[in-house]
Amino acid sequence: MKIIRTVKALRKELSRRRTDGKRIGFVPTMGYFHEGHFSLMRRSVKENDVTVVSLFVNPLQFGPREDLAKYPRDLKRDRRMAGKAGVDLLFVPSVREMYSSEPLAYIEVGRIGAALCGASRPGHFRGVATVVAKFLNIVQPEVMYLGQKDAQQSAVIRRMVLDLNFPVRLVVAPTVREADGLAMSSRNVYLSPSERREAPALYKALQAARRSVLSGESDGKKIISEIKKLILEETNASIEYVSLVELGCFSPVRRIEGDVLIALAARFGGTRLIDNVIVRGHAKR
Amino acid sequence: MKIIRTVKALRKELSRRRTDGKRIGFVPTMGYFHEGHFSLMRRSVKENDVTVVSLFVNPLQFGPREDLAKYPRDLKRDRRMAGKAGVDLLFVPSVREMYSSEPLAYIEVGRIGAALCGASRPGHFRGVATVVAKFLNIVQPEVMYLGQKDAQQSAVIRRMVLDLNFPVRLVVAPTVREADGLAMSSRNVYLSPSERREAPALYKALQAARRSVLSGESDGKKIISEIKKLILEETNASIEYVSLVELGCFSPVRRIEGDVLIALAARFGGTRLIDNVIVRGHAKR
Repeated sequence: MKIIRTVKALRKELSRRRTDGKRIGFVPTMGYFHEGHFSLMRRSVKENDVTVVSLFVNPLQFGPREDLAKYPRDLKRDRRMAGKAGVDLLFVPSVREMYSSEPLAYIEVGRIGAALCGASRPGHFRGVATVVAKFLNIVQPEVMYLGQKDAQQSAVIRRMVLDLNFPVRLVVAPTVREADGLAMSSRNVYLSPSERREAPALYKALQAARRSVLSGESDGKKIISEIKKLILEETNASIEYVSLVELGCFSPVRRIEGDVLIALAARFGGTRLIDNVIVRGHAKR
Repeated sequence: MKIIRTVKALRKELSRRRTDGKRIGFVPTMGYFHEGHFSLMRRSVKENDVTVVSLFVNPLQFGPREDLAKYPRDLKRDRRMAGKAGVDLLFVPSVREMYSSEPLAYIEVGRIGAALCGASRPGHFRGVATVVAKFLNIVQPEVMYLGQKDAQQSAVIRRMVLDLNFPVRLVVAPTVREADGLAMSSRNVYLSPSERREAPALYKALQAARRSVLSGESDGKKIISEIKKLILEETNASIEYVSLVELGCFSPVRRIEGDVLIALAARFGGTRLIDNVIVRGHAKR
């Protein structure tokens, strides 16, 4: 596996392989890899001739009071893990390399990026969409792999790809979880031992909600308060949001009739965790 | 020359030629071709294996009270002219084809798009940048050709390409003019005979300003009022703006010390014309 630090060097590597007709898969990451990243890398390696993984903690998607400076980093470990997954090129650009001039051009993704995480993190999805557009233009992959855990991020990127005709296919792979159900996240390392014991309650509450919907409950409000109640009973977390939204456009759902995304964000001390499930509702008229 | 109406068909045509290692040149237009368009097409034909020209009157870049509906169109004539220039593929998508879903994702280009034409046409450069990004993703050309007449448009696109790492080289070709100096524009057909006689005064005033700068005048304000005076003396036009700005970032210039763009917009009746010159100032300290 090669580590590459400049756009120019990466383009050179890729142009050679592209001329040979190689199929390129791409996994964008902020590093500090866990099993979730690993499964995306493995899948790309399996489905393509060349796999590029970007490792870049993107300042544009962090707010001024967020955890940019203390976001966990461990290049040595990441390198080992990417190598083990069979990754060909690990792209690790500096902030200066990615934003050599003050970035004036950026991508907005309208209301999909405004709700849920976007409400508490203004500018976050603009930063995500902008850096992913840059990577797509640098790597020019056939396929890009994202994780379902960041559901809103996937929806924003899916809409950007559609609206701006990016020539790439998106694969959104299922969330990988710890044995007790906690969604894998680089931020899990921030949790204290007691917070770590409580955190699986998030997924437990989402699963209970899924069971409610599947057994006929279609009132969005009831589902939301059920989830909140379960989380507050079992943890000391503060809930940021629990939302039911339509899958594609992220519009709020009051009465569940089709596929919905149930998504939540909660804080354990200073650590913000997110999780979600997709549930197919029963249309009843 | 082939006329192509869908993104899918165009991608198919191009993917075949790309596999054969053909070099693709691209000229985005709104049609109603004049010698300016023709010179861009000729240049692309000369410098590339395949030339794609898009012909699309983009609703996203027109304001609600602008001339979208009456923008001049003549596909038959355009087709003949593109064929004569040696264009390979003329891409003429419908509005529905380009914006099949409500466009949520768009590209903003910060302050470069806010001044000059952007001030009187809010949202205009967002519309331009967004549709050009779409075309770049659909055509994936090696080179894109733009005209210097739309100087701010070129600057906006240049910045978008730079900031978002679009893998394309930009060529900005000189403005093509009528014998009397009037910049070629599809909108010139709107001019009444008397307006047409007056319109060359715009370029005459810009040339006079250029001479002033070259002979040592470095006071931006003076240059601007000189231009305004000349135009008001020789025409019945109403001036929208006359501005001196830095070439790359479009910041206003008070004291001319390096390369500047002198740009203006004026209305002859209902017809809005723009023009500009680039002048190299004398650094004097």
